[in-house]
Amino acid sequence: MAGDRKALSVALIGAGRIGSMHAEHLARHIPAAMLAAVVDLDAASARACADRYGVSWTTRLEHVLHDAAINAVVICTSSTTHTEIIEAAAASGKHIFCEKPLDLSLERIDRALRAVRDGGVLLQVGYQRRFDAGFQRVQRAIVTEEIGVPHSIHIASRDPAPPSLEFLKKSGGLFLDMSIHDFDMTHFLLGQPIRRVFATGAVRINSAIGAIGDVDTATVLLQAEDGTLITIENSRKATFGYDQRLEVFGSKGSIRVENVSPNSAVILGKDGERRDNPHHFFIERYRDAYVAELRAFADAILHGRDSPLSGEDARVSVEIALAATQSLETSLPVDLVSA
Amino acid sequence: MAGDRKALSVALIGAGRIGSMHAEHLARHIPAAMLAAVVDLDAASARACADRYGVSWTTRLEHVLHDAAINAVVICTSSTTHTEIIEAAAASGKHIFCEKPLDLSLERIDRALRAVRDGGVLLQVGYQRRFDAGFQRVQRAIVTEEIGVPHSIHIASRDPAPPSLEFLKKSGGLFLDMSIHDFDMTHFLLGQPIRRVFATGAVRINSAIGAIGDVDTATVLLQAEDGTLITIENSRKATFGYDQRLEVFGSKGSIRVENVSPNSAVILGKDGERRDNPHHFFIERYRDAYVAELRAFADAILHGRDSPLSGEDARVSVEIALAATQSLETSLPVDLVSA
Amino acid sequence: MAGDRKALSVALIGAGRIGSMHAEHLARHIPAAMLAAVVDLDAASARACADRYGVSWTTRLEHVLHDAAINAVVICTSSTTHTEIIEAAAASGKHIFCEKPLDLSLERIDRALRAVRDGGVLLQVGYQRRFDAGFQRVQRAIVTEEIGVPHSIHIASRDPAPPSLEFLKKSGGLFLDMSIHDFDMTHFLLGQPIRRVFATGAVRINSAIGAIGDVDTATVLLQAEDGTLITIENSRKATFGYDQRLEVFGSKGSIRVENVSPNSAVILGKDGERRDNPHHFFIERYRDAYVAELRAFADAILHGRDSPLSGEDARVSVEIALAATQSLETSLPVDLVSA
Amino acid sequence: MAGDRKALSVALIGAGRIGSMHAEHLARHIPAAMLAAVVDLDAASARACADRYGVSWTTRLEHVLHDAAINAVVICTSSTTHTEIIEAAAASGKHIFCEKPLDLSLERIDRALRAVRDGGVLLQVGYQRRFDAGFQRVQRAIVTEEIGVPHSIHIASRDPAPPSLEFLKKSGGLFLDMSIHDFDMTHFLLGQPIRRVFATGAVRINSAIGAIGDVDTATVLLQAEDGTLITIENSRKATFGYDQRLEVFGSKGSIRVENVSPNSAVILGKDGERRDNPHHFFIERYRDAYVAELRAFADAILHGRDSPLSGEDARVSVEIALAATQSLETSLPVDLVSA
Repeated sequence: MAGDRKALSVALIGAGRIGSMHAEHLARHIPAAMLAAVVDLDAASARACADRYGVSWTTRLEHVLHDAAINAVVICTSSTTHTEIIEAAAASGKHIFCEKPLDLSLERIDRALRAVRDGGVLLQVGYQRRFDAGFQRVQRAIVTEEIGVPHSIHIASRDPAPPSLEFLKKSGGLFLDMSIHDFDMTHFLLGQPIRRVFATGAVRINSAIGAIGDVDTATVLLQAEDGTLITIENSRKATFGYDQRLEVFGSKGSIRVENVSPNSAVILGKDGERRDNPHHFFIERYRDAYVAELRAFADAILHGRDSPLSGEDARVSVEIALAATQSLETSLPVDLVSA
Repeated sequence: MAGDRKALSVALIGAGRIGSMHAEHLARHIPAAMLAAVVDLDAASARACADRYGVSWTTRLEHVLHDAAINAVVICTSSTTHTEIIEAAAASGKHIFCEKPLDLSLERIDRALRAVRDGGVLLQVGYQRRFDAGFQRVQRAIVTEEIGVPHSIHIASRDPAPPSLEFLKKSGGLFLDMSIHDFDMTHFLLGQPIRRVFATGAVRINSAIGAIGDVDTATVLLQAEDGTLITIENSRKATFGYDQRLEVFGSKGSIRVENVSPNSAVILGKDGERRDNPHHFFIERYRDAYVAELRAFADAILHGRDSPLSGEDARVSVEIALAATQSLETSLPVDLVSA
Repeated sequence: MAGDRKALSVALIGAGRIGSMHAEHLARHIPAAMLAAVVDLDAASARACADRYGVSWTTRLEHVLHDAAINAVVICTSSTTHTEIIEAAAASGKHIFCEKPLDLSLERIDRALRAVRDGGVLLQVGYQRRFDAGFQRVQRAIVTEEIGVPHSIHIASRDPAPPSLEFLKKSGGLFLDMSIHDFDMTHFLLGQPIRRVFATGAVRINSAIGAIGDVDTATVLLQAEDGTLITIENSRKATFGYDQRLEVFGSKGSIRVENVSPNSAVILGKDGERRDNPHHFFIERYRDAYVAELRAFADAILHGRDSPLSGEDARVSVEIALAATQSLETSLPVDLVSA
Repeated sequence: MAGDRKALSVALIGAGRIGSMHAEHLARHIPAAMLAAVVDLDAASARACADRYGVSWTTRLEHVLHDAAINAVVICTSSTTHTEIIEAAAASGKHIFCEKPLDLSLERIDRALRAVRDGGVLLQVGYQRRFDAGFQRVQRAIVTEEIGVPHSIHIASRDPAPPSLEFLKKSGGLFLDMSIHDFDMTHFLLGQPIRRVFATGAVRINSAIGAIGDVDTATVLLQAEDGTLITIENSRKATFGYDQRLEVFGSKGSIRVENVSPNSAVILGKDGERRDNPHHFFIERYRDAYVAELRAFADAILHGRDSPLSGEDARVSVEIALAATQSLETSLPVDLVSA
């Protein structure tokens, strides 16, 4: 494939489920980038992933950071290691794509963002929903004032089933693990500071989730600088699959996106009209968005553009998630001091 | 129409817009009831309405309350007069259908409800949405556990345009005038106490509404006794007409009702796929529900059944509306003490 | 109800299922008309219906035809008696609303239409679908050229279950009994002559229907004067209820109407997204249309307007239905000679 | 990409629009196949396409047919050359994927199919719609009897705009160029012989199309062996884009697939509810299906399975298209003699 020139050599760091997906996309679907190496502490995982695409592998991060042929890294390790790897990569002059969340601590995030600025590299964070055709359509309706000025937003965001309790214990709680995507979506759509956060929650699905101090059902109410009211409904378990809906109501009208189905079939029978359920979970639902975010990453680097989803952007949703966590604990609204 | 026996003789009190509609329904669409008299302080209004159906009219309430042939009254006067008329009617042994809200004061409501109990008459309050086919379908899905146990509810409830400032000044504010329907819907669907209310609001449509101390855009978050989270989005102005949508998410699934359109046409053209807007406002949207509530009123009296929407039911939404008003003023959640 | 002035006194002829429905509409829902008498050969049926509204009844048609106080008749007897009654009513100077079809013979129809013209009365035929909000919306889209010039029409028209074999034997066959509504719809929408008819059919539901020489499943293809291609799909049995859909494709776009549901509920669960079935059959589906057609009848008489659905209009669909019957028998297209 | 083992070496023959698309899919999206060479009579086209993927190119078909390293060919040349190339490829022992139609002559098709059988190679024809998720869902509903036994099928199949007159002159007419996809779909869904064809058509879009003896609007009625009635509506121009809808009505219910949109957005505003138009044309609409058909081709070869869409399958739709053409010319139904 000599003729298929790929300008960017990318190392994948972390070859788990999401890392393997990004590897596939880098190897096949991003004309401007190529997968050059795979890093994983687990040699077997690293090798398995690397062999699939005929690239080299290693268990040592330094190997790729010291490799001048590598232009960028895609970080898919566990959340607690993100900022440390970002700092090392930035120091080595590698551009960085990092899975969400950057970290659960604003201090560690700020330190990492300083490192990124000092390194003069580009950092993009993996909130893939921003690259979904539906949500981009909504954003366009706002930017072009097709629906006028937004007055309120409603997000329904639910998973098909809770993750393991083990995972949940380290997740930082529902708001930092799950709602954070919706906070980022709000930031994407409105692009203005949130001034107040009020969070409510309940344990309705699994009492074991309550036992570890978390909730499995929550509704968060945000108010933006200009008064726009945002409601986010979350649940760890929707029997009908992955629930990802959103509506923005504005001065001229409203735009909503509905769940995306694998087919457009409508079946009529004696029990009524039926459609198949939406895509079951994020890998299928956001397949195109995951490709698009890496494409945007490669394009931004190659054309010297700003990051399409900077560390500063990503910091915002962590800040809101921490405020929501506090609001739930205190049963009081939390005011965010605008920068 | 001698053969068309109507068991119930009903006097209409207040022949304004909503009263005229009820008169039409009583005269034509409620087999078990007949319009017998019209009362209005304004003689011309009373006469115009009465003449349409060939019945008697008066400007004096006593005339109908002292008329032994009258079995029931339908009260459509301005809100501030409701409790007083209820008390007089109850004392005269007339059954009572009263438009919402009963009153803006819980004390006056309680006094009126005592009068109703003392009079041994039936009182039904006019939250017509409970009689809408769609919302009844939702309630049935809850009662039959078609969607399992409710975990959260989302209501979008918006008017096509704000009423006059004059009206707004006396309305008691958005929560007592408009959201109160949604609070009643919540009570209808869940049938359990609300323990906490948090209300947010903004002036986004007309600054004159802010100037009189009200909001025109609001989102209220309720939490029910069992933890169920309810979100209500209100606006005084939806360009696309009357917005009346609702979704209940439960342990086994979800049910929502969408806006109701005057036709099922879908138009395809170069600018996309288009459907006509929903019914413009409540008179058209709830035409069938308005008939159904009066039918239920007549049936309950004739068959000695309990009121399908009692004064005690109607008191609940006033209580929540007052709490929401307080929450908006204080920017704090308000706890409701359960009875 | 002295004040409720009804200008038109109407006698119902034939107090069966559809007649009883029209009686109810005349008595309650048509401000401009009043039910004045009921005629039925069966005294019990006549009396039962008349008593419901406190009007007189008779088993003798002459009684109402000779009654100068009666302005109009609504004919709901069996099809074979229609033309004879029309002729008698026309001779008596009564305006006539007649259920479909006028007759299965063009000769008898023509004789009856002459009698109508000679009597100087108004005749309206009961193809109620023309008065349905959805189909009227489609017609408006054609008339206003919202979809440009029509190029093709597709009608899906299916019953929930076949009628009794007894009924079918006298029905004239699928095209004269059932498709005739769709032929009338085509005439309503296009308002131009049909030049060619090709009909296909099959026995797929009940072989007993085949045994009496009829089909239970059919597709008819019409071509209009200007080339517009019309397809009509019929079936005697749709498990999901009454199927009444239509799409007109034109030079600027397309408009379709979908089935009408009793509610707008959407239920999500593990087996997919579900909606309740449409209205089960014509009485529920076309409730408003049945009222509207009688309202139009009364209005046309009172305002001296042309019949909204004349005998000449109604003759067209019989002509097409006869051609379709012939086409099915010969397996060949049938050309209609334009007038 | 040494590690990315591709078992099948494929030569592309014909590097035009559809050929370039297949090249991209072979190079990137079919794990089991790799693009190995590009053949085009036009050297510039061949080179441009080959260079994109770093593979060799030639203007001489023999070069790839004599190349033992090549396992299969994908034929995307103009229709008139298909059978000749198929014969040469079969003689060289290359497996063959050929774009539709095989040819417009049943004789030439039969000769080519004999060559395929003699060569012992696999031939798959490019009716990509069979590999679309929606249509596959419909087929599954038939096979599993989810909708019972099919009674009728309705296909709406319209292009966004007519091709050039130059193209149309050589196309064989609407039925052989456009409806042929729908005939194939019918064959795919029912898998039983068609016994009768009746075709109607009109010139409604562009009189120049009529001047070359073709129609631009057509409706074809087929009847299958068991009586199932199939209607196909075609048009060369739908203002709203590519119209690809289908409904199968059966003894237990009905299944339809609607057009596929690039997003699920619904916009509400004063002019009604709006959705964006469906994908504009076949390249976008069937992107996934085009990948899936080549994947199925590679898999069938590698696992020694039968062709998923054989030459014999593809012959069926040509036979129906020729009968439709004859029916249109004679204005009579055409009976097909079953094999």
